[in-house]
Amino acid sequence: MSPPLQPLRKFQIEIRVRYQETDAQGRVHHATYPNYFECVRVEMLRAAGISYADLEASGVLLVVTELGCQFHAGAVFDDVLVVEAETVKAKGTRIQHNYTIRRGDEVLVRGHTVVACINPQGRPQPLPEVLRPANLGLEHHA
Amino acid sequence: MSPPLQPLRKFQIEIRVRYQETDAQGRVHHATYPNYFECVRVEMLRAAGISYADLEASGVLLVVTELGCQFHAGAVFDDVLVVEAETVKAKGTRIQHNYTIRRGDEVLVRGHTVVACINPQGRPQPLPEVLRPANLGLEHHA
Amino acid sequence: MSPPLQPLRKFQIEIRVRYQETDAQGRVHHATYPNYFECVRVEMLRAAGISYADLEASGVLLVVTELGCQFHAGAVFDDVLVVEAETVKAKGTRIQHNYTIRRGDEVLVRGHTVVACINPQGRPQPLPEVLRPANLGLEHHA
Amino acid sequence: MSPPLQPLRKFQIEIRVRYQETDAQGRVHHATYPNYFECVRVEMLRAAGISYADLEASGVLLVVTELGCQFHAGAVFDDVLVVEAETVKAKGTRIQHNYTIRRGDEVLVRGHTVVACINPQGRPQPLPEVLRPANLGLEHHA
Repeated sequence: MSPPLQPLRKFQIEIRVRYQETDAQGRVHHATYPNYFECVRVEMLRAAGISYADLEASGVLLVVTELGCQFHAGAVFDDVLVVEAETVKAKGTRIQHNYTIRRGDEVLVRGHTVVACINPQGRPQPLPEVLRPANLGLEHHA
Repeated sequence: MSPPLQPLRKFQIEIRVRYQETDAQGRVHHATYPNYFECVRVEMLRAAGISYADLEASGVLLVVTELGCQFHAGAVFDDVLVVEAETVKAKGTRIQHNYTIRRGDEVLVRGHTVVACINPQGRPQPLPEVLRPANLGLEHHA
Repeated sequence: MSPPLQPLRKFQIEIRVRYQETDAQGRVHHATYPNYFECVRVEMLRAAGISYADLEASGVLLVVTELGCQFHAGAVFDDVLVVEAETVKAKGTRIQHNYTIRRGDEVLVRGHTVVACINPQGRPQPLPEVLRPANLGLEHHA
Repeated sequence: MSPPLQPLRKFQIEIRVRYQETDAQGRVHHATYPNYFECVRVEMLRAAGISYADLEASGVLLVVTELGCQFHAGAVFDDVLVVEAETVKAKGTRIQHNYTIRRGDEVLVRGHTVVACINPQGRPQPLPEVLRPANLGLEHHA
């Protein structure tokens, strides 16, 4: 009856490139891609029955502490990109996701982020039950 | 000894166009200019000894309720723009500013905003003393 | 067999608010909404069988020359907004659209833009056949 | 008489945080910092007498191929940040910069980028003379 509350290991969404996200070189500005990563994290939670907005309202904030990107080719306006996230590690207060952004078969961007769980006062707090390794299918990282 | 706390009627700043602010047409994306308007509002307050960050911390929030822009010509990457604001009206909970953005002698953008004063709960509140018409040199609008 | 190439008078899309689009007041930053207007313009063309990316590739550029917004209430992170555009005028080189952004029954933002048709060298050019008033169902504005 | 055309190894600028760059957590959104990195790269070139806009006009484009950031603490609206770049490697078609963003004595963000030199058709091309290792004071990486 209630949603599964079981975050997925791997998830993907489609994002269409907006004009504002391009730059004068005619391609998507590189600082846009971290926003796409954030979108897929939010949707991956939602697919598991978790609203990140509700998490924040309950005092559980996730902040990005690390970001890495390799840009292999540039997306252009109106491209439909497949943005895939994989949860690869969860330990203590932190979760790592890896990302792949594709246009058709072509990989445009690979990346990763580490998010840390903090309270509204900015202090680290343990990951909530629903985001703990066992519930992420990541038993080996407990 | 203390700063004047007397908002100026007219003020200008220089802003250099960032690469991220351009789009695939090779010019500054139009949604960038409202940010430039916001920058000059903040600096106009600061020039009068008022920190908008402090205003917010004291429970005085200004929110934009109206925005208008006419785009006459496009700025490009690395242009140094002169962004000028003029306070033209203050009444009740609201202040109107007009803007002109120039590159050298050429007017690129004209615009206006209306900001309303609200409290942290989002309810309208009277403009603080320091932003009242007499203190803005706008006696006729009291 | 071929797509209708008949722009619609009225069209709407849903947009979910991204975290990056919010600001420290906890709501969507006002400079975000012109991007939502742009998204619905692009999708309104697509729904009529016209790719704006293809239009640009063929030398037909649309640039925003005027923008107006009234902000009635603020969207927050994760809201699903209905962004509606209506083509209200087309004459010479220009087209005006009006917009309404709603969250459920609540109107958050109303706005309008005027776009002008230019060539790649930045000179005005007549609207292409497909965007002329008769084809927009706007005979009275021919 | 002519400018030195000698890129600096290390350079820093000040950037004041704009309201639009904050998010609903009350701090600067993490996708903002790559823009600050880009600003200091452009100003570091300018300080050496090189306009990146002119470089692009001459057919020399620099594109970001790799980005890394560690976020240690969050900047807030109106903070004045010191954004420092150091050129650490230049080889073939690529240059690596490391970055540190400080608020006073506190390090908020560390990062790096790799930019690659391409021509307007998107093909790699050797770094222009002015950006070669010897001219960057990076003899060991030739």
